Amino acid sequence: MPPMSEHTGICFTSAVELAARIRRREVSAREVMAAFLTQIERLNPQVNAIPTLLPERAEAGAEAADRALAAGEATGVLHGLPIAIKDLVATRGIRTTFGSPIYADHVPDQDEIIVERLHAAGAVIIGKTNTPEFGAGSQTFNPVFGRTRNPYDLERTCGGSSGGAAVSLACGMLPIADGSDLGGSLRNPASFCNVVGFRPSPGRVPQWPAEDLWEPLSVQGPIARSVADAALLLSAIAGPDPRVPIAIDEPGEVFRAPLERDFAGTRVAWSPDLGRYEVEPEVVEVCERSLPILEDLGCSVECAHPDLRGADESFQVLRAWKTAAGREADYRAHRDRMKDTVIWNIERGLPLTGLDVARAIATRSALFQRAFEFFETYEYLVLPAVQVLPFSIDVPWVREINGKTMETYIDWMGLCYAITVTGLPAISVPCGFSREGLPVGLQIVGRHHRDFAVLQLAHAFELATGHGRRRPEIA
Amino acid sequence: MPPMSEHTGICFTSAVELAARIRRREVSAREVMAAFLTQIERLNPQVNAIPTLLPERAEAGAEAADRALAAGEATGVLHGLPIAIKDLVATRGIRTTFGSPIYADHVPDQDEIIVERLHAAGAVIIGKTNTPEFGAGSQTFNPVFGRTRNPYDLERTCGGSSGGAAVSLACGMLPIADGSDLGGSLRNPASFCNVVGFRPSPGRVPQWPAEDLWEPLSVQGPIARSVADAALLLSAIAGPDPRVPIAIDEPGEVFRAPLERDFAGTRVAWSPDLGRYEVEPEVVEVCERSLPILEDLGCSVECAHPDLRGADESFQVLRAWKTAAGREADYRAHRDRMKDTVIWNIERGLPLTGLDVARAIATRSALFQRAFEFFETYEYLVLPAVQVLPFSIDVPWVREINGKTMETYIDWMGLCYAITVTGLPAISVPCGFSREGLPVGLQIVGRHHRDFAVLQLAHAFELATGHGRRRPEIA
Repeated sequence: MPPMSEHTGICFTSAVELAARIRRREVSAREVMAAFLTQIERLNPQVNAIPTLLPERAEAGAEAADRALAAGEATGVLHGLPIAIKDLVATRGIRTTFGSPIYADHVPDQDEIIVERLHAAGAVIIGKTNTPEFGAGSQTFNPVFGRTRNPYDLERTCGGSSGGAAVSLACGMLPIADGSDLGGSLRNPASFCNVVGFRPSPGRVPQWPAEDLWEPLSVQGPIARSVADAALLLSAIAGPDPRVPIAIDEPGEVFRAPLERDFAGTRVAWSPDLGRYEVEPEVVEVCERSLPILEDLGCSVECAHPDLRGADESFQVLRAWKTAAGREADYRAHRDRMKDTVIWNIERGLPLTGLDVARAIATRSALFQRAFEFFETYEYLVLPAVQVLPFSIDVPWVREINGKTMETYIDWMGLCYAITVTGLPAISVPCGFSREGLPVGLQIVGRHHRDFAVLQLAHAFELATGHGRRRPEIA
Repeated sequence: MPPMSEHTGICFTSAVELAARIRRREVSAREVMAAFLTQIERLNPQVNAIPTLLPERAEAGAEAADRALAAGEATGVLHGLPIAIKDLVATRGIRTTFGSPIYADHVPDQDEIIVERLHAAGAVIIGKTNTPEFGAGSQTFNPVFGRTRNPYDLERTCGGSSGGAAVSLACGMLPIADGSDLGGSLRNPASFCNVVGFRPSPGRVPQWPAEDLWEPLSVQGPIARSVADAALLLSAIAGPDPRVPIAIDEPGEVFRAPLERDFAGTRVAWSPDLGRYEVEPEVVEVCERSLPILEDLGCSVECAHPDLRGADESFQVLRAWKTAAGREADYRAHRDRMKDTVIWNIERGLPLTGLDVARAIATRSALFQRAFEFFETYEYLVLPAVQVLPFSIDVPWVREINGKTMETYIDWMGLCYAITVTGLPAISVPCGFSREGLPVGLQIVGRHHRDFAVLQLAHAFELATGHGRRRPEIA
């Protein structure tokens, strides 16, 4: 085992650099794997981000990666990089619990497309990252594996649902990770853990198998310590697949283009609250510091936001409908083994009529339309990623903000889910810290299908600020 | 006015040739327009395919087209070609009734994208083509404009819902036409009227405005007298639009590539009935004559079909749901002015639960998946477009086939709507005639998003058979 400084050197090297060094055989995949396994051994007991770890598989995978390199057979852009898969994503032969005791012993016999592609790109799957039960709620705890802690303050939540992934990155326990995002599950934990979480356009990362292959609400995407690393991962998992009708035709390679761009004259809208949500003043304060930085990049920043009326009702109806449809059988058979918020959501979904759903879908289309009109004027919308700072790990969900009561367990996620409903690509990028040292993410939303442009502005912002380089003290 | 032989010469010239001759100024747009208006004047009273005709607008449009040509400003591929728009499609400033007395005086203030694009391509809009009330049912009659007759037998139906479009083409009253297809509305009237109707992939022709911008069931597409003409029209109306999230990124220009291709070794599946529907023996007989022709082209033809179990329930639920959602307000206010089949469909849709809809959507995804697996073996599936020959114009919908009772007014459309549910592109191309001289269409279904490949096989088949060149006697 290398001395700590050496292994953490590897663990906090960017994925782009690490992949290049492995490819050039300056470091072996085995050495890299050993460094990450050491870091996991050291930190995971404190944060519980990777509850399923397969060290033998990891080492064997690293050895195979080195052999492939020696034989000149390594072509994938992630060759030799360790990755752990979100525990909501089916992995063949690896236990996949969805954070639910009902599925505590579930071992899928098939990989999802995103897993197939990570294999094909040469990544070595070493385990699973923790999520809330059935991914519900932006706080990562479940009765199978317990709670995942925020490495910037172990008494705070890491957010969710891609909580284990975000924490693993912040701690240098993984170089890259996958996540998924319905109401903010890539953006929220990225914001809380000072990493980058990118919700790409629906169809950018084809999802299969799926109950609804035309589904535009829930998407999969990359989470990483830098925008460039997120782009690298996205280049491996994006691109068309004939099994998924809404897959975007553009190949993943487009995300390997240089991220640099001139932003002179780019019109950016800034909104602290989308004109409709309660946001903690300190979150707004930290995010507002980004505005002069965007202006220094050449952007022209104005206060504006699209008209998102109807977004809450539409999102909550569609979410309840999908939860009820997807989990009805589990609910009928195992209601006693489900957490109350999941039950509440299913019970909200079960009585919905077809017309309720149709109205929510029509509202979503109207929101897309109004967002389109807004983005004819502005190329980007920037806003806080999350309405609150990371809160106590003992609080399952936020009950009030600025003295205003939240009616449901997802009300505090409006800044994320209202963007979800528009169908637009959105990233959370590190924006700075609260007075107590808690991370705050800036959300950057781009035009329809302009995923690359979102990465470009986030990359420029990241270079100008460097907040993402500040590690948690425990790491 | 030119003598009849001269004007019909123009009217039955292919759209590809006619557009080229106008562009080369071998014939003026005015002469072309005069020929079509003469043909409409002569034949429309017999068939009632273009109930809204705007001759002054048509002539002014043709004059403007000629002026643009003279000024070197004509660039659109349809420059100077007359077109009439299906009366389900909103046209700014032109009455759009949806075939419903409720909308008898409805004049939209906005064009749909397809209309914008036809304008941009230089087509001259001269009126509207007839459809069933709200497009419901593959028989073109409505209380606003009455019935549209089949030019091959005026006592028979022309099918629908793009009935007016198909008849206009068969009669040489239009060179090209648009249509839409939910359960077969492009394929069915094409089959009944000996023309070509192409249902492209969802998103190929972006639909906007729309209640559900992510909708994959109802699509718009071209209807024409030849496959090459359909490809020309499609090249003008296909391609991405940022207002439509599911729009396919490929530009329309891809449909201007040569349609010729070598089919040696191409695996084609043939199914007379998809293993589940009643089909009139004479329809099967005519379609089976296509098999040696496909083999002569080099194809290897085998009897096979995808497993479409669940297609009927899924389609009927989704259709009822969408009808109820889209027409609920009209139903509440004007039930007495709706036809019984529309009322029946709305009343079937109103009590649907959200879970009913979710199950139908899950079934649709499963069907897409099974179709995908089937099309890993076969490149094409060919089958009859319609289960029956054109029937009496006095019959609103088919009550029985081969002695088997049809339960609903859309049961006889299974061969079309089951393909709709798979999301795959499908064309109806003229395949021959019954002993009584009634047209029969062959349906060719292609792989996911392989719209061009569908046109290619249809084109080769058309060239090998020439059925589409047989005009109705009245023309």
